[in-house]
Amino acid sequence: MAVKIYDTTLRDGTQGEGISFSVDDKLKIAGRLVQMGFHWVEGGWPGSNPKDMEFFQRAREQEWARSHLTAFSSTCRVGQRPETDVIIQALLEAGTYWVTVFGKSWDLHVTEALNTTLDENLRIIRETIAYLVQQGRQVIFDAEHFFDGYKANPDYARAVLAAARDGGASWLVLCDTNGGSLPWEVQEITRQIGQEFALPLGIHCHNDGELAVANSLAAVQGGATMVQGTINGFGERCGNANLCSILPNLTFKMAAETIPREQLAHLTELSRYVSELANLHHPNNLPFVGKSAFAHKGGIHVSAILKNPGTYEHLNPELVGNERRVLVSELSGASNIVYKAEELGLDLDNISAEARAILQEIKELEHQGFQFEGAEGTLELMLRRAFENYQYPFNLVAFRVINEKREGERFHSEAVIKLQVGDEIIHTAAEGNGPVNALDRCLRKALEGVYPAIREMQLSDYKVRVLNEKAGTEANVRVLIETTDGHDSWNTVGVSENIIEASWQALVDSLAYGLLKRKKTSGPQE
Amino acid sequence: MAVKIYDTTLRDGTQGEGISFSVDDKLKIAGRLVQMGFHWVEGGWPGSNPKDMEFFQRAREQEWARSHLTAFSSTCRVGQRPETDVIIQALLEAGTYWVTVFGKSWDLHVTEALNTTLDENLRIIRETIAYLVQQGRQVIFDAEHFFDGYKANPDYARAVLAAARDGGASWLVLCDTNGGSLPWEVQEITRQIGQEFALPLGIHCHNDGELAVANSLAAVQGGATMVQGTINGFGERCGNANLCSILPNLTFKMAAETIPREQLAHLTELSRYVSELANLHHPNNLPFVGKSAFAHKGGIHVSAILKNPGTYEHLNPELVGNERRVLVSELSGASNIVYKAEELGLDLDNISAEARAILQEIKELEHQGFQFEGAEGTLELMLRRAFENYQYPFNLVAFRVINEKREGERFHSEAVIKLQVGDEIIHTAAEGNGPVNALDRCLRKALEGVYPAIREMQLSDYKVRVLNEKAGTEANVRVLIETTDGHDSWNTVGVSENIIEASWQALVDSLAYGLLKRKKTSGPQE
Repeated sequence: MAVKIYDTTLRDGTQGEGISFSVDDKLKIAGRLVQMGFHWVEGGWPGSNPKDMEFFQRAREQEWARSHLTAFSSTCRVGQRPETDVIIQALLEAGTYWVTVFGKSWDLHVTEALNTTLDENLRIIRETIAYLVQQGRQVIFDAEHFFDGYKANPDYARAVLAAARDGGASWLVLCDTNGGSLPWEVQEITRQIGQEFALPLGIHCHNDGELAVANSLAAVQGGATMVQGTINGFGERCGNANLCSILPNLTFKMAAETIPREQLAHLTELSRYVSELANLHHPNNLPFVGKSAFAHKGGIHVSAILKNPGTYEHLNPELVGNERRVLVSELSGASNIVYKAEELGLDLDNISAEARAILQEIKELEHQGFQFEGAEGTLELMLRRAFENYQYPFNLVAFRVINEKREGERFHSEAVIKLQVGDEIIHTAAEGNGPVNALDRCLRKALEGVYPAIREMQLSDYKVRVLNEKAGTEANVRVLIETTDGHDSWNTVGVSENIIEASWQALVDSLAYGLLKRKKTSGPQE
Repeated sequence: MAVKIYDTTLRDGTQGEGISFSVDDKLKIAGRLVQMGFHWVEGGWPGSNPKDMEFFQRAREQEWARSHLTAFSSTCRVGQRPETDVIIQALLEAGTYWVTVFGKSWDLHVTEALNTTLDENLRIIRETIAYLVQQGRQVIFDAEHFFDGYKANPDYARAVLAAARDGGASWLVLCDTNGGSLPWEVQEITRQIGQEFALPLGIHCHNDGELAVANSLAAVQGGATMVQGTINGFGERCGNANLCSILPNLTFKMAAETIPREQLAHLTELSRYVSELANLHHPNNLPFVGKSAFAHKGGIHVSAILKNPGTYEHLNPELVGNERRVLVSELSGASNIVYKAEELGLDLDNISAEARAILQEIKELEHQGFQFEGAEGTLELMLRRAFENYQYPFNLVAFRVINEKREGERFHSEAVIKLQVGDEIIHTAAEGNGPVNALDRCLRKALEGVYPAIREMQLSDYKVRVLNEKAGTEANVRVLIETTDGHDSWNTVGVSENIIEASWQALVDSLAYGLLKRKKTSGPQE
């Protein structure tokens, strides 16, 4: 059995509360999904906003665009023709080979929401698809509210699918838009439709009943061969069907062919990467990919696990790129550190007491919210401090940041920094449009004279995450900074209960790492 | 069809990472569950820790204890007799009428984890239950790893159930302990067992495949008449089956008799209450009971919802005590703001030029990154400014925040604020562990004298998001703040390129909205 995977993180996923991606983020995610073998990536709705249009303009130049990229749209509007409807013209302008068109398949929606006749709804579906096919597009038809529609008026729901088929759609996708269907209903209705229509079927579920994964699997049992969903189940209300759970269930539990098995070993990484770009916390209890998904508390479990992992694990965590964690010892990060140190060619056999202290510091930082994936620059600096006695190129003597606002005046931020570089003391000041920007400008101003290479380095990304949110403004804050010199980019991190201090740490590391990198590649020259 | 509900939040739920309840908390939760009609409340494992024993000593005095309270335990140990095993004696000491005993039903576990023979395992199950029955107890038998055991060795799994039956158990509960089973497997195995055993069956699922709710419902389809689970799906790894989703699915989708329907209208409240006592964030996207479960974002959705809620809702939110929410965001049309204004009872027919200007301001703020979907407090203040000439209870004259660090010293943050309240000028200062915390403390210090109600308001969540991240430290920053007065919570927002200014805006709105809310509910009194 082969099941194709259709990702709509970048379109339906962004309907979730608090989820939005920049165009750059969307391009990065799309590239990664395609690389992992996802069959379709739905990039957005070009007719609905300029950001999505920009995405398609940039994405269609990718070599994978023709085979994997799809653009989403409604049909043409009631009373209009697709040839002249701006929505459909915007869809064509997006320039994708695949397009996904949704239409209403619940009679109630046609009369109550769309305010038109049942026949007119069939016409706009049929004519829109026919026109798009005529324009050389492959059309996937999303039958919105299909299961509710089928339960209310099965003949009309069938007529909608027939209109899409007659228009020339390649796929019929049955949508549980309100997310309230039960697995056995989904399975049985999918089975019936499969008997009546010769086209391949897809399934699109929402999680309002906490059944989106089960409903998607049930549809596959009923004959669907495409599953739509999102990474981490992002999506409106309670979310869309979570592909991070559907993929391993299909592949390892139901023996279906989905994306290549070796790519599934990157699933955990993908899941965390997408949360990171969305700037959302990655819940520990996420099935398969969460930090606690294979965590074992002490006692009976642990000794059994040591004898035979199958006793308390439903799946080998390595298959999805996750790892076993034993909560009593909190040993999880150590192997990452060892791996990284080995990668840097550091001598692990000869760990001094000082190195051990720094490793301990790394583990504590990790416990506070440090993340290796996002901040290799800082990690490398720490490891080199531990193993090679690395020294920062400058030392802080003092700094001060002042933020001021007076009635009717603009907000004002100013930073004053005093540094020691070698024997020299540098004392300078700068303004900025915020405290961190003032600090960044001031630090550069202080160091540019001694290290001209800093002029080539630019901050390219700045992210803030409150770690233990319930603590309010007393919480720990993590600042992630990406810096680029035009060729390469690197990431550094700072963690503190004070956002200015966390930003300072990340800023200092970003410049220090940039200088270290330069020294490594060009050899000693100072 | 009647299905009994068995809650194990207080026992299996507390195996979840970071979840622990005081004895008082446990008593409160147990009382509430019983009041709502839950059939059993599993209070803990008296043999495993003194806290659980204290709970039972206090709980068994409740008038509902005999009918609803159950204590959990293993069987007696290998090679021992129940009469003399301390674990079983502790169970009896707990003094409950109902007891729940678990035993291994997977041959692999018996030989690999328990290190004994298959026959000895049957003996300890049978004899433990027989002894407890002889002591006047009603015994529920949890068959651990039943589905994995049945798949590996169906005859032995059956022999385990037979041993429990022969010992005198009242219920046989089939457990998917590792959480990896699929719904159709669970349904079919439950159906088979139901044909072979005359005792009533229960189901106990874990969520490792994101299928715990579906598996529980599938077992009911297969003939189970008791469902075990936890509030909010609390539990080890990926959690237990979530009763807050199972209950409405069983009751409203499958027409089963569970707890009284009028009690289901308290489900949302219960869910939030248990999270509150566990001191855990209540995820917005929780099915049925989450804040976003009935939230609508897209413009099309909203206009349809206004005509007929059934178009985009799988269930009337009032049935589970939740409410419809309309999110105002960049993706939405004007109808969302109109809906919100109508909800507040504002007169939309009479929009002044000033009101129109404020509506325009709202749209522009949205464009800048104000996300009103997470910040109804700020939105309401703006709408009341537009339609009711709302005035803030204080005006800023000036403020200053200083952050300082000197070599070898701790980071230091101090805020100075000057406010006008009526004719009075208040000028004060405070320190904090970060600039925003210093500002928060200083603002409260300044206002507490005039508005004592502020003392009851506490920041409960603080979120920072960099909007246009690629702009580095010159980017716009959005700060979302959640404030609570112990009963309710509300959200406010600030956006600026300066994080201190954005935090200030959100802080000011959080207190202003809290005061407005209080005035609304208690009537004018100042």
